[in-house]
Amino acid sequence: MKYSRLFGKTIKDTPKDASLISHKLLYKAGYIRESTAGRYYLLPLGLRVQQKIQAIIKQELDKAGAQEIITPILHPKALWEETNRTSSVGFELMTIKDRNEMEFVLGGTAEEMIVDLVRKFQLSYKNLPFHIYQFSTKFRDELRARGGLLRLREFLMKDGYSFHDSEEDFKREYQNMMDTYTKIFERVGLTPQIVEADNGYIGGEYSHEFVVESDAGESRYFTDGEYFAHEDIASFTLDNASSDEEMKGVEDVEGKGIIGVEGLAEYLKIPVEKTTKTILFETDTGRIIAAAVRGGFDINEEKLVKIVGCRLLKLASAEVVKKITGAKVGYAGVLNLPKEVKIYFDESCANRRNFETGANRTNFHTINVNFGRDLPQPEQFYDFKIAKEGFIGPNGQKLVAKKGIEVGNIFQLGFHYSSKMKGAQFIDADGKKKPYYMGCYGIGLARTLAAIVEVSNDDKGIIWPEAVAPFMVHIVGLDMDDSSVKNEAERVYKLLQAEGIEVLFDDRSGVSAGEKFADADLIGIPYRVVISKKTHSTSSGQAKDKLEVKKRNEKETKFLTFEELLKIIQS
Amino acid sequence: MKYSRLFGKTIKDTPKDASLISHKLLYKAGYIRESTAGRYYLLPLGLRVQQKIQAIIKQELDKAGAQEIITPILHPKALWEETNRTSSVGFELMTIKDRNEMEFVLGGTAEEMIVDLVRKFQLSYKNLPFHIYQFSTKFRDELRARGGLLRLREFLMKDGYSFHDSEEDFKREYQNMMDTYTKIFERVGLTPQIVEADNGYIGGEYSHEFVVESDAGESRYFTDGEYFAHEDIASFTLDNASSDEEMKGVEDVEGKGIIGVEGLAEYLKIPVEKTTKTILFETDTGRIIAAAVRGGFDINEEKLVKIVGCRLLKLASAEVVKKITGAKVGYAGVLNLPKEVKIYFDESCANRRNFETGANRTNFHTINVNFGRDLPQPEQFYDFKIAKEGFIGPNGQKLVAKKGIEVGNIFQLGFHYSSKMKGAQFIDADGKKKPYYMGCYGIGLARTLAAIVEVSNDDKGIIWPEAVAPFMVHIVGLDMDDSSVKNEAERVYKLLQAEGIEVLFDDRSGVSAGEKFADADLIGIPYRVVISKKTHSTSSGQAKDKLEVKKRNEKETKFLTFEELLKIIQS
Repeated sequence: MKYSRLFGKTIKDTPKDASLISHKLLYKAGYIRESTAGRYYLLPLGLRVQQKIQAIIKQELDKAGAQEIITPILHPKALWEETNRTSSVGFELMTIKDRNEMEFVLGGTAEEMIVDLVRKFQLSYKNLPFHIYQFSTKFRDELRARGGLLRLREFLMKDGYSFHDSEEDFKREYQNMMDTYTKIFERVGLTPQIVEADNGYIGGEYSHEFVVESDAGESRYFTDGEYFAHEDIASFTLDNASSDEEMKGVEDVEGKGIIGVEGLAEYLKIPVEKTTKTILFETDTGRIIAAAVRGGFDINEEKLVKIVGCRLLKLASAEVVKKITGAKVGYAGVLNLPKEVKIYFDESCANRRNFETGANRTNFHTINVNFGRDLPQPEQFYDFKIAKEGFIGPNGQKLVAKKGIEVGNIFQLGFHYSSKMKGAQFIDADGKKKPYYMGCYGIGLARTLAAIVEVSNDDKGIIWPEAVAPFMVHIVGLDMDDSSVKNEAERVYKLLQAEGIEVLFDDRSGVSAGEKFADADLIGIPYRVVISKKTHSTSSGQAKDKLEVKKRNEKETKFLTFEELLKIIQS
Repeated sequence: MKYSRLFGKTIKDTPKDASLISHKLLYKAGYIRESTAGRYYLLPLGLRVQQKIQAIIKQELDKAGAQEIITPILHPKALWEETNRTSSVGFELMTIKDRNEMEFVLGGTAEEMIVDLVRKFQLSYKNLPFHIYQFSTKFRDELRARGGLLRLREFLMKDGYSFHDSEEDFKREYQNMMDTYTKIFERVGLTPQIVEADNGYIGGEYSHEFVVESDAGESRYFTDGEYFAHEDIASFTLDNASSDEEMKGVEDVEGKGIIGVEGLAEYLKIPVEKTTKTILFETDTGRIIAAAVRGGFDINEEKLVKIVGCRLLKLASAEVVKKITGAKVGYAGVLNLPKEVKIYFDESCANRRNFETGANRTNFHTINVNFGRDLPQPEQFYDFKIAKEGFIGPNGQKLVAKKGIEVGNIFQLGFHYSSKMKGAQFIDADGKKKPYYMGCYGIGLARTLAAIVEVSNDDKGIIWPEAVAPFMVHIVGLDMDDSSVKNEAERVYKLLQAEGIEVLFDDRSGVSAGEKFADADLIGIPYRVVISKKTHSTSSGQAKDKLEVKKRNEKETKFLTFEELLKIIQS
């Protein structure tokens, strides 16, 4: 491809809202343009990279025994109702009616569609296992899209679904996919962590995320180096043995302007563990609830949403807090709340004696509170606290908090779908109809592309791994007004192409060498080959008949013959 | 791929509503399954074929200088309003709102999206021309979908858009695309006719359809062997020189039970050309209009819809006809209709003297009617008549009517979009901003796939051209319970794959030879290779170490060595 003809060239400025490095670089280098928030055009350079990632995924999945198919994008809504997902899905579903008033869901994930396809066949145990997958556009009506490709409302996803006659066989495939994903990400230049995660709206009992460590990511997880778990499920040792302390008399203590549990504990001369954090939330249906954790812990809203059984939670406003507690924000507590406000207690609140809580009275705290005396013993304690750096993980080691980009995930689905959808069965060797055991497996392609840029760049631009680079060689033609140099550049361009090597040839005239080098660095193609008067001199000289070659990820410039260059590229 | 592991196998029965041969064969052979009407799953076999077609299209387009990109599927509705297409599009647009109340159109064609992308760049004449294309899922909310892949509501389409600084340069690209399309269709095994067509809702002044002649198609066109034109625009010689006949006295004549214009002409002793056919239609907004053509012609409703400026026309019901004309159906005429019923006259009605029309009175016709005397001279005559077999075309030859499958089309758009969309301009050499001159180019992939099956099959199944076949070789393993035969089949399977040849290996045991042969014929892979006790005998014999090879499109079976087979396949 000649750069002069390429649609989508480099540009100096970045979009105003661009904060992510991948967003800035992909925009400036001419890989992407935004249509509306969360919906992007991939320009020729961007699509080339996505197609290389896609080809690698396909190769590895086919090698692993999966088979590619394609489903429609519009899913009959009736299917999603069969599994009751229209109400449980975490992201907002987009629905649409056709002119015949039939309702559809814009596919965001395709479990129901795939089961509906599979149940059209009379399956016997001989047909199992199988694994089918697709690359298709997915829709998620995110409340807020981020700039760039990390959180999109519309994106190409690889989603695969496996069917088994037993849990054991599924486990083999789950491991197969864990290995296959590891290979795929390795080939595209990423080394994600495999992180235990929550299944969320997908259903099933366990799952793993493939997370590329990066501050640009939104996946938060904890690790001790061996144990990797998403913050939604990270487990840690909770020191809450029963206390046999004698109950003291409950009393309100004034504590105006004391900020934070540590300050409070110091002021009240009690350990932090005796303080209680009580937060009021409003659900999506307008109900007010209270959630209490022991001082030193924070609330994981994702966990709490599931426990409460609502779709969304937001912090109650100052007005609502005032109305419910009679006090300003900061003094909410678990005593004397209106009856209609249900209190959820985290397990960290259990087994305590003489604990503190906000007094529901501005500037006051109540101390020496005890379950069973000052308020009823809760029927149930929950786990909705979030792990924190320094907490002790299941291996007895301190946990470290990490952020990363979730590029893929694998889910055990078990019988979640096959038990809910009628006819989702196979005939076993004993002649009986049985539901199949399922798994599902996803990779976000645009996000993978952006993750590569996030971890592989420098202050000059992108540094593509060879396997996914839009082109392998970037010929920078200087002195293009000199027809002899231009012809030589054309010759090398054609020779490389004849060897099956993809080449971008900067054939522009009237553009400075500095500008061309800057563009080449920004675009990030692995091999830069300069052809100029200097390299193509008819007088004798060191550089004669040599190409000036520089790898994007190295500093050194080498003078190589065409054959030497070829050997390096093809090695 | 081993057939025992293939997802989507052959089946005996066809869907009840299947009438098209491509629908029946693709279903029975395990290429497709319906989700809802007009929305299909492509199973592994079907997707393989579509991907081969896609790869051929991509190769030829890239070779022709076009560049692949991808646009979002959800188009901001505001863009379609910019060109006023939300109201003019012939197919029903599907629209959807996101949670932020932003309105989108599900893309059916992407002119606005592409112009919106292109105008994000500061284009100069140096950047022109360019041609960008995509493969993306398109949506058309068809009132009625046909079974199978010929008329879908959701399908993969290649759509390309070219941008030029002049009409001349566009014409070069138009010819380039005509040649490229011809090459593409030739490579996939089709020889479509290039038919002049109407631009319809796409806009612009002229276009061509690529139509594969087939009774299964819905594209109707006329040809004299050199001239090919869609029925919506086919031109023919109209013999309507002005008549200087003297006006006679108008009178009503009873003509009960006379059917058809010829019978009427004979009964009234006038030439057919003096009779008039008047039809009442109801528009989508409930308005009643009348359309009149000279006897011997039929009305092209597509043309008429555009002339009337409505979205749909349907024949007025008998009740409405009675109410408007006071007569039974069959006696509507152009005289004395209620004022609110606008009459559209086809040009064939012009220049006549003493013509006949229905009397708007049951059983009666009015004769010797004249414009300017019995009714006002129409301000305008239109062309909404349809050509008919036997009419004389522009070359002076008789026209023949044909039906076919429209697999592709190319459109001149001119300034249609760039004049309507703000900022759709480039800076010319003279420093002035000018709108670009555009063309657009489409290929329907699923329809192309179905068209291949429609023209390439026999009573046993599909006959795939090699270039698009899902696999090149179908190994039919017989006697698979004999481990020596099975090993030999496995060996050949692996050897062929090692040569880069795609093989489907029917490795099933417990299935009869007859059933396996029938499946192979149904699936339609180009080379069938039988490996059995007979071909793999350890005793000496003619067939020893030879493969039993039959081409799907030939009757003869040959015994070939592996090397001979390889030579034929790779030739």
